Amino acid sequence: MSDLVTLRHTASHILAQAVTRLYPGTKLGIGPAIDNGFYYDFEFPSPISEDDLPKIEEEMKKIVKANIPIVKCVFTKEDALSKADVTSQLYKKELIAELPEKDEISYYTQGDFEDLCRGPHLESTGRLQAFKLQKVAGAYWRGDEKKPMLQRIYGTAFATKDELKQYLFQLEEAEKRDHRKLGKELDLFSIQEETGPGLIYWHPKGARLRHILESFWKDEHFDNGYDMIYTPHIGQSWLWETSGHLGFYAENMFSPMKIDEKEYYLKPMNCPFHIMIYKSQLRSYRDLPLRWAELGTVYRYERSGVLHGTMRVRGFTQDDAHIFCTPEQMEKEIHEVIRFSNYILNTLGFKEIDYYVSTKPTKSVGDQSLWDSAIAGLKKALEMEDITNYKIDEGGGAFYGPKIDFKIKDALNREWQLSTIQFDFNLPERFDMTYIGQDGQKHRPYMIHRALLGSLERFFGILIEHYSGKFPFWLSPTQFKIITVNDSETITSFANEIFTKLKSAGFRGEIDNRNEKLGFKIRDAQKQKTPYSFIIGEKEAEEKTLSIRKHGEQENITLNFDEVITLFNKANCKS
Amino acid sequence: MSDLVTLRHTASHILAQAVTRLYPGTKLGIGPAIDNGFYYDFEFPSPISEDDLPKIEEEMKKIVKANIPIVKCVFTKEDALSKADVTSQLYKKELIAELPEKDEISYYTQGDFEDLCRGPHLESTGRLQAFKLQKVAGAYWRGDEKKPMLQRIYGTAFATKDELKQYLFQLEEAEKRDHRKLGKELDLFSIQEETGPGLIYWHPKGARLRHILESFWKDEHFDNGYDMIYTPHIGQSWLWETSGHLGFYAENMFSPMKIDEKEYYLKPMNCPFHIMIYKSQLRSYRDLPLRWAELGTVYRYERSGVLHGTMRVRGFTQDDAHIFCTPEQMEKEIHEVIRFSNYILNTLGFKEIDYYVSTKPTKSVGDQSLWDSAIAGLKKALEMEDITNYKIDEGGGAFYGPKIDFKIKDALNREWQLSTIQFDFNLPERFDMTYIGQDGQKHRPYMIHRALLGSLERFFGILIEHYSGKFPFWLSPTQFKIITVNDSETITSFANEIFTKLKSAGFRGEIDNRNEKLGFKIRDAQKQKTPYSFIIGEKEAEEKTLSIRKHGEQENITLNFDEVITLFNKANCKS
Repeated sequence: MSDLVTLRHTASHILAQAVTRLYPGTKLGIGPAIDNGFYYDFEFPSPISEDDLPKIEEEMKKIVKANIPIVKCVFTKEDALSKADVTSQLYKKELIAELPEKDEISYYTQGDFEDLCRGPHLESTGRLQAFKLQKVAGAYWRGDEKKPMLQRIYGTAFATKDELKQYLFQLEEAEKRDHRKLGKELDLFSIQEETGPGLIYWHPKGARLRHILESFWKDEHFDNGYDMIYTPHIGQSWLWETSGHLGFYAENMFSPMKIDEKEYYLKPMNCPFHIMIYKSQLRSYRDLPLRWAELGTVYRYERSGVLHGTMRVRGFTQDDAHIFCTPEQMEKEIHEVIRFSNYILNTLGFKEIDYYVSTKPTKSVGDQSLWDSAIAGLKKALEMEDITNYKIDEGGGAFYGPKIDFKIKDALNREWQLSTIQFDFNLPERFDMTYIGQDGQKHRPYMIHRALLGSLERFFGILIEHYSGKFPFWLSPTQFKIITVNDSETITSFANEIFTKLKSAGFRGEIDNRNEKLGFKIRDAQKQKTPYSFIIGEKEAEEKTLSIRKHGEQENITLNFDEVITLFNKANCKS
Repeated sequence: MSDLVTLRHTASHILAQAVTRLYPGTKLGIGPAIDNGFYYDFEFPSPISEDDLPKIEEEMKKIVKANIPIVKCVFTKEDALSKADVTSQLYKKELIAELPEKDEISYYTQGDFEDLCRGPHLESTGRLQAFKLQKVAGAYWRGDEKKPMLQRIYGTAFATKDELKQYLFQLEEAEKRDHRKLGKELDLFSIQEETGPGLIYWHPKGARLRHILESFWKDEHFDNGYDMIYTPHIGQSWLWETSGHLGFYAENMFSPMKIDEKEYYLKPMNCPFHIMIYKSQLRSYRDLPLRWAELGTVYRYERSGVLHGTMRVRGFTQDDAHIFCTPEQMEKEIHEVIRFSNYILNTLGFKEIDYYVSTKPTKSVGDQSLWDSAIAGLKKALEMEDITNYKIDEGGGAFYGPKIDFKIKDALNREWQLSTIQFDFNLPERFDMTYIGQDGQKHRPYMIHRALLGSLERFFGILIEHYSGKFPFWLSPTQFKIITVNDSETITSFANEIFTKLKSAGFRGEIDNRNEKLGFKIRDAQKQKTPYSFIIGEKEAEEKTLSIRKHGEQENITLNFDEVITLFNKANCKS
């Protein structure tokens, strides 16, 4: 158990001690350390609110200052039960009742407070240097909605004050960048609960960015030897029985629709459709490799509790591709996908990438020798691309084959898995895919699944948070705003002229000629995170110059039109 | 009744007379004139095949040559029934039995043949100058699959031999151009019956054309003041109840899926989703007009019998847009859509367009005054675009509003409806859409549905047939093929050089360096309808020139690379 877990667990005890001092009669639930902090569930004599947290924190500080030793005591089950009875701790009693008869039951005490607990803990309360209470939420006792609703207090704790500060800053920053918040503020997308949770509506500005991203993605795929295909969103049960989805994946699929006595399912994956095209004609080794890409929208059932903005949804568009090749071509193809993925991720602003090779899990299809050679191929391909610091995720492969995952770090140093390259020993067998080899005989092709961004929805969320809504110029839905100082004819005419010329030069923007105060319009462009604004007053209109602001900040630069074009062309370069 | 209908009806009687002469004991079904011809249903003593048609045609010619007068005779129902009994014409008897008691029942006789018939007919058999039997098919008596299967002979007839010849030529041409046939030959798309009829799989070449079309379409929309949006493919029943689809359109919708106790439907239309985005915030008159376009894939149930290639399907992508505007903006918006539609259709090669304004049907929503002003607006907008020869389709509007349909003529002079501009008085009411007017009050926006191409799938089919697979250069999936005469190093290296240079210049092509005879490779490029082929032999490779063929035809032109680029740039211009 790590030091941080012990630290946070002790913090939760100190929280509970403070609460029992301030709110006598409070019944204690449980108080574990969790990722990034700790919590404790309480049944208060009467409910508290977040306004009460400072007071509780003060009390905790007193306990810390008193540096009370934390001592482990051991009881029999019988003694523990009667102790819970005496103190009216009915939730603790329930927990103790479920423990085996013969085990010794440990309590940790600190002064006037004691708590049923396996430990370990810090030696004394004074060791807790840096903590913070964060919020209050409702939580059913033992997560069961038929049981009483308790109040859960969340907090966090770190070894040093600096680490705590850093964490809280990052948290605040993450909240500011929350794609759900920015998505609304910048009018990028919405989710309409009444027409279906987990389904994304791309508003004009979000859709513009998606269009730029899709165009970039498609052009790059054509340039890099891929063909595009389009396949349906539904397929008869025959397809999903053959693919094995109905056997292994049905709980993540939407329920079937009946048409002409046949059952159809929304596709959770594009692969079987790509295979149908492969099988639509006889294939020869001369036709291979085939690299087929599709921006394919798939639907998967996720419990409503786990849905999260555009990041975890029920409908999403995979930037999918399948490569069908001969065994001899495999290494070169994988190498090429690695190179291509790196290039795309770098261009989109993600330079720091970690690579994970996942190996054979316990339950899997395909001979060990197949797995071994495929894994060797994946490693070799990484090394061909001079990537030697990849990590091994032992047993982390899909049941149908090994894979390479690419994880990027965003601006807040958070890790996100994006690209994935997966081998598939399963589907070519299930669909009896073949090609005619040089020997005139039928052979089984190799099949590689790969996605670079994962899904457009999730990637969009990551982009928003990574850039905090300040997208790179080439991805910005609105690249410039022309802000008029008033509606005089000179100003209006110059504003229109500049707008038309910038549009003809291929840039995207708006004129803000609303009858509002200049400051309001400037702040609005800033709030909208528009890369460049031009303020046009009488002086600018007469001199035909442009007073420019970048992200709303005064730059004190005045440019003529040609200089703006030069600036924009430079800004438009992908990173 | 038109002359052609009479003519064809007489042709069907002559067919029946010939059949009863050749196959005594044949029982007669019915024999009407239909679009483009006629048919007659027979129960032969033993089944015939298409090989028998020439013999029947010969017998018909004899009857024509004999110029037998065609005479109408009238009977009572009783007499007609006993006549049917005597001649054992049980199907005729069934028809007679259903006629009202008191009506006189007419027969038409020509020599030894007579047939229950309302007429009218030509005066004598000699008047039939030009006819042709086409095929034999099975047909249930009265279209009821529980009744006996008869054999239906199809034929056609025209006033003159020239018209017949022209029609048969056109028919043959249409068969050659059939998009289902060419779709397979050019490997453009497939339909996989076992995963679902009516669902289109776009293969790499078809998808490439679709991508070019979509890019063109999107760029033009951005340039012409539209925003793009993306919406989900499924929505909860609440949405379809509110839109009225579940009330009026349910039989064309796929059956629902149940998720978390809610029913979801595949969308048959995009409109309600666009309205949800409209309603996601308060709208002001300053925000209008909003023009939102989406390449939205919708699913509609069609009986399997009516499905036809990509033309009539169960899943298709509409090139949809909705315009939300104030009443004052309506005329200008409609005018603009007309201009834009014309431009897009012209660019895609369709110059001949007919316009239809459809007015209020009997069952409809919205006041007469609303309809009147909307129809006046549609007409005015057409006239603003100098279109005065539009036709009126009385009562042909949708129940929710009037519309303008654009019908184009293809290379075979067949008419296809493409663009449609539809007013909607219904959905803004049902969804209670509003905007805040200049007066600070809530107002109802006008809503216009419009599609330029209709659906990408159907338009793709029309394009294939119109161009007979020889797509304009800018739409061609493969614009050029480089055909090597042999695999010598000089030739291979020059072929690669040219390929790379043309690719860098933005053109799409392939190298055919297969170890096949030159003639075979040239014919293959021709069969694939590749616009340009370059044959590269030793001479070309040494002299660095390109011997060029257009659609496989020898052009006897040798060009250097720069000349090819000039040629391609010119060819790449949209019409």
